[in-house]
Amino acid sequence: MRMSELLKRSGMPLATVKYYLREGLLAPGESVGATMADYGEEHVRRLALIRALTEVVGLPLAGVRTIVGIIDEPEADRYSTLGRAIAVLPPAVEADAHGDYPRARAALAEIGQLCDPGYAAVAQLERALAAAEAAGLPMGRERLHGYARHIMAIAEIDMAELPEADTSRAVEYSVLGTALYDPIFAAMRRLAHQDLASRMLGGSAGDQTR
Amino acid sequence: MRMSELLKRSGMPLATVKYYLREGLLAPGESVGATMADYGEEHVRRLALIRALTEVVGLPLAGVRTIVGIIDEPEADRYSTLGRAIAVLPPAVEADAHGDYPRARAALAEIGQLCDPGYAAVAQLERALAAAEAAGLPMGRERLHGYARHIMAIAEIDMAELPEADTSRAVEYSVLGTALYDPIFAAMRRLAHQDLASRMLGGSAGDQTR
Repeated sequence: MRMSELLKRSGMPLATVKYYLREGLLAPGESVGATMADYGEEHVRRLALIRALTEVVGLPLAGVRTIVGIIDEPEADRYSTLGRAIAVLPPAVEADAHGDYPRARAALAEIGQLCDPGYAAVAQLERALAAAEAAGLPMGRERLHGYARHIMAIAEIDMAELPEADTSRAVEYSVLGTALYDPIFAAMRRLAHQDLASRMLGGSAGDQTR
Repeated sequence: MRMSELLKRSGMPLATVKYYLREGLLAPGESVGATMADYGEEHVRRLALIRALTEVVGLPLAGVRTIVGIIDEPEADRYSTLGRAIAVLPPAVEADAHGDYPRARAALAEIGQLCDPGYAAVAQLERALAAAEAAGLPMGRERLHGYARHIMAIAEIDMAELPEADTSRAVEYSVLGTALYDPIFAAMRRLAHQDLASRMLGGSAGDQTR
């Protein structure tokens, strides 16, 4: 497709697309003449990725560059490649000076899950558990097990669709699936609470449609 | 307890606590002399709530004031009282001009859950579903049902601990449980992905302890 078509498909202005081309975030099109280039579905796809990461996830351009770099040149080790890409996503949590993460470590041991302190989510879990504890709502043992069971089931649904053959596609899927499904998760949890509350508490919920 | 003990328990400086007293976010202590006041566990609790909402959730003081107002003077209708308090929490999503929310409405109808467009999470779900769709990862029917089942199970765990007798306590629990457990959720989902990836992909995960 020509640039005009790419702009239409991506919904982005020319200046923005040219900027991504200059920055190397978008590969050049195939030359079809002195001033013309041909773009493919990969270009549409890449622009959708950049837009999701900047506009929806709110990632600074440096973070987008890191993720795009990993997608364009993945390492042989898929596990660590995926881990490096996911670590770029928010929330950014400073690493514990001691690398200690006592709450996260205890919680993961309790539910029998891998604890890799080099992975950003361990620090994220530590901070989140500490905050809940400080506010007087510590994660209890029973709740932890209940959560873990259902979250693992959700993770299995996610992983079932991981593109197996292609590491670049797997990184793209993991990054977008993590960042864009977090808010779906949060909204669905609130809506499930509301659905239960309307049954338990009645009240004005009676007016609504189910 | 005296003010000095309250400061120690809350870990807040005097100026901050005085500011919350002036703003009416913290009730005055009981007078025990011309210049002395006595504070109770309710004061410690309130300061922990304010700290969680400002420092962890990142709520502006106007939002804290709204939530504290709802806790101090809840309406008779518990369902709408809880809904009003939760609506103050991030993410703030502008209401759809048409109040339409086609994706959220269809998703909630599909899983047979209450859809109350006056409730902020409907707009949040609409925006999150639209973003995933735009990025080429739309929520499929099967995934929606899988997610919904497990998220409902998690919501049931949450609601089982809702304080029944006291609406103010119920609001406090719901606000903190929603805002502080969202990040626990997000971190646990990433860690579940990692645990599965280490089993599926092997690689450097072999070095880690489970």
